[in-house]
Amino acid sequence: MEFYSSQISNLVEQLSRLPGIGSKTAQRLAFFILNMPEDQVAGLAGAMTSAKKNVRYCKQCCTYTDGDICPICANEKRNHRQIMVVENPRDLAAYEKTGKFEGVYHVLHGAISPMAGIGPSDIRLSELMVRLQGDVDEVIVATNKNLEGDTTATYISKLVKPIGIKVSRIASGVPSGGDIEYIDEVTLYKALEGRTDM
Amino acid sequence: MEFYSSQISNLVEQLSRLPGIGSKTAQRLAFFILNMPEDQVAGLAGAMTSAKKNVRYCKQCCTYTDGDICPICANEKRNHRQIMVVENPRDLAAYEKTGKFEGVYHVLHGAISPMAGIGPSDIRLSELMVRLQGDVDEVIVATNKNLEGDTTATYISKLVKPIGIKVSRIASGVPSGGDIEYIDEVTLYKALEGRTDM
Repeated sequence: MEFYSSQISNLVEQLSRLPGIGSKTAQRLAFFILNMPEDQVAGLAGAMTSAKKNVRYCKQCCTYTDGDICPICANEKRNHRQIMVVENPRDLAAYEKTGKFEGVYHVLHGAISPMAGIGPSDIRLSELMVRLQGDVDEVIVATNKNLEGDTTATYISKLVKPIGIKVSRIASGVPSGGDIEYIDEVTLYKALEGRTDM
Repeated sequence: MEFYSSQISNLVEQLSRLPGIGSKTAQRLAFFILNMPEDQVAGLAGAMTSAKKNVRYCKQCCTYTDGDICPICANEKRNHRQIMVVENPRDLAAYEKTGKFEGVYHVLHGAISPMAGIGPSDIRLSELMVRLQGDVDEVIVATNKNLEGDTTATYISKLVKPIGIKVSRIASGVPSGGDIEYIDEVTLYKALEGRTDM
């Protein structure tokens, strides 16, 4: 992009490294940023560097936080005897938005994937096992409903059950508001299998 | 988003102010940034603040540049007697990518829009008129093919013709209502080739 001066080219290039941002979007963002007031640009840039510098894993649940312990683990009103295991902080956020879960979380930062060379020691499983030495009633496995998520769920179940702690898995089924005719066969089969009494 | 610590919330909020970035995308970008190496985050943040601080209008064509004059205006191999008038730097970039235009540009930073209260003095028209006092053979108006772009083209034609300089308009190969930056290169080239006298 030799028709841009170097600082603009650099900004466009840096932005286009972000996921889901192609070169056209990067251009659009770059010119938007050039048009922003200088203090807002400083705010955006500062938020990035400061978050990168200060954010680490929560010492309990391994989600991202800027303190030692995340706001959820620090909340005494949550049920600390019920731990929901999720693959990443975005999944945690998705469940928090339901407002229906009062327990705490454990973030694995990934899932077991032999294909991708990701084994049990590459995700935050040992940290989960350490937590289970405390008073825990139930581990709810909310990893994704795909090969990696299911493999991880099975692995966790085999580790946790022998300790005498209940392990459950979030239900598979037809999504709320879903049209049965458009749902795939595996999901329909799982929904039938997992039917509940009315 | 009280389940995120404050620095993460702040980063997500800052990112979601960018155009086309909703809260889910902002979240995804934020966690991606947290996973980037620290020097890359510094690079991205630095590119923003430094571009914002140093980028200004080219003294000749009014596009963004970090020097006094942009690389195109500084290029002696370009035909400085042929000026293509565009609405914004993204349109300039779109035409540069065709590789078919050897003249120089003039960036208006907008278009006349009585509806939005944008008049001729709100865009970089006077700077164009100053340039036309030099040796110029042709002004090619490549504003968008919509109401504002056409209004601007007509206005420019009425200003420039009396000086005795040829004014042309890119051809209607560009679909009506279309935004120049999103059009494919062949169509843009055809539109340039098929320009008609005004």
